[in-house]
Amino acid sequence: MDDSVELGSINVERVESYLRSLQNNICQTLESLSESDRFYEDRWEYSGGGGGTSRVLEGGEIFEKAGVNFSSIHGVKLPKAATVKRTDLKDRPFSAMGVSLVLHPLNPYVPTTHMNVRFIHVDKRKWWFGGGFDLTPYYGFVEDAVHWHQTAADACEGFGEGLYLRLKSWCDEYFYLKHREEARGIGGIFFDDYTDGGFENAFRFMQSVGDHFLKAYVPIVERRRSLSFGDREREFQCMRRGRYVEFNLVYDRGTLFGLQSGGRTESILMSLPPAVTWRYDWKAEPGSEEHRLIHDFLTPRDWISVQSG
Amino acid sequence: MDDSVELGSINVERVESYLRSLQNNICQTLESLSESDRFYEDRWEYSGGGGGTSRVLEGGEIFEKAGVNFSSIHGVKLPKAATVKRTDLKDRPFSAMGVSLVLHPLNPYVPTTHMNVRFIHVDKRKWWFGGGFDLTPYYGFVEDAVHWHQTAADACEGFGEGLYLRLKSWCDEYFYLKHREEARGIGGIFFDDYTDGGFENAFRFMQSVGDHFLKAYVPIVERRRSLSFGDREREFQCMRRGRYVEFNLVYDRGTLFGLQSGGRTESILMSLPPAVTWRYDWKAEPGSEEHRLIHDFLTPRDWISVQSG
Repeated sequence: MDDSVELGSINVERVESYLRSLQNNICQTLESLSESDRFYEDRWEYSGGGGGTSRVLEGGEIFEKAGVNFSSIHGVKLPKAATVKRTDLKDRPFSAMGVSLVLHPLNPYVPTTHMNVRFIHVDKRKWWFGGGFDLTPYYGFVEDAVHWHQTAADACEGFGEGLYLRLKSWCDEYFYLKHREEARGIGGIFFDDYTDGGFENAFRFMQSVGDHFLKAYVPIVERRRSLSFGDREREFQCMRRGRYVEFNLVYDRGTLFGLQSGGRTESILMSLPPAVTWRYDWKAEPGSEEHRLIHDFLTPRDWISVQSG
Repeated sequence: MDDSVELGSINVERVESYLRSLQNNICQTLESLSESDRFYEDRWEYSGGGGGTSRVLEGGEIFEKAGVNFSSIHGVKLPKAATVKRTDLKDRPFSAMGVSLVLHPLNPYVPTTHMNVRFIHVDKRKWWFGGGFDLTPYYGFVEDAVHWHQTAADACEGFGEGLYLRLKSWCDEYFYLKHREEARGIGGIFFDDYTDGGFENAFRFMQSVGDHFLKAYVPIVERRRSLSFGDREREFQCMRRGRYVEFNLVYDRGTLFGLQSGGRTESILMSLPPAVTWRYDWKAEPGSEEHRLIHDFLTPRDWISVQSG
């Protein structure tokens, strides 16, 4: 194991305070986008200690379903899914806190998005940050993909040479449906077991990711929210959401962590879309926009070079 | 390991021939129930050898989506999910054949059902049968539950004292959503690693299960297919189908076997319902029919005694 995990002294209260304000900022900004999209709050306690605040919105004008969850829990046994690298810490008492969100817009031209930032510590000397954000469009716009990835790159700026590219690849690798041979979306950034430069630097990086999320997502919502759509786009959106469900229930470590740690099922599965369709062996017509999404957007690409190229 | 697995000489051709005729009988009978429900056939090949015939129906009068799949595949490495007991056979070359079906009716008063019978062999001396059938109602009828379980008990008749009760418990245990603390449905029978009495007897038992499926299910369809329903029942059905998806993607060994063996994704996920809804923390109103389903039907019960009691 590398030694950086031993460096620096952690300050749990500051992390918790940042995460609570991040949840507030995100909900306020999303509410400011329309007259009718309003979150309600649901507080819950975790059996092992701690709890969370779920903010949920259903049937809004922009968001058909949205969940922005803050949680801070303690457990007696760190679940296997909590860490790739630190298997020596499996089964140790732990604390985990984070903000996790999934936004499912009504309009199929507005992409679904997921963001998460988290901090886990087993004791004062064994801790790490994780998180990231990724985008799942139903219809592909190069302009949106470039903006999304450029903002992700901005979030990584100043935290080490090549960091964005490393975390982008990690994201592409993580959000991949092996049984479909298909990416979940156009990716973004993903990180875990992050301790670079000690606690202060690693915490600053997690904040940078959290703070760049709205800058990455809101302009895309604004550009696409008024495009008109019909049954065809809606049906395609509902089928694509099926892939989202498949990913979250079969592969997602966050979901597995939650279910394995005996977490609150409703908060964990808040990520599942509101209306979903599975049709047998449906294929997009070659040349259609639906086909273009799957073939041109759901294959990992270097989106930032697309802009300059 | 017990010795019974070594007994008897197997006849793969007879098993395959029975399975093909079972698929035909089931599809013909289901088609005979209405003027408009018609299956189409989709043949496919498996990369490792062998293949299958999927019969699929979408948008029918009785069935919103139905899939009756026959497959017979060969593989170089037996997937972990293929057997509970015979872990010594993991990673050995294998053959697996079976009929698997999931029927999703349009009318919420008609239950969803799943049936599977299968035969797996690693070589002439290591083989077993598995399968079963189970029922997932959206609205509870005691009469239907009793008939379903009585027919399941009939299928077990003559194959050993206490067999039905053992396989019913196994079914209740298997089709259970731990994270919801809820049964998937009212159960039925489930068996695996079945070699009792050698090949001839075990094969006869698998046939008995296959042959009793229509006797168990069709009378229930006939009784409930004309009940009128509205948005409320439809919405509840779509939400309950969400639980079906959760079970199949998180727990189901058949699904995992398929995905792990690099099986044909569309045939494996044919089981997923056509239209599904997830709502945050939805709860049935106490005293309602929806509440009655969850509390009185989705908790394992001895349905056969209900009748005589």
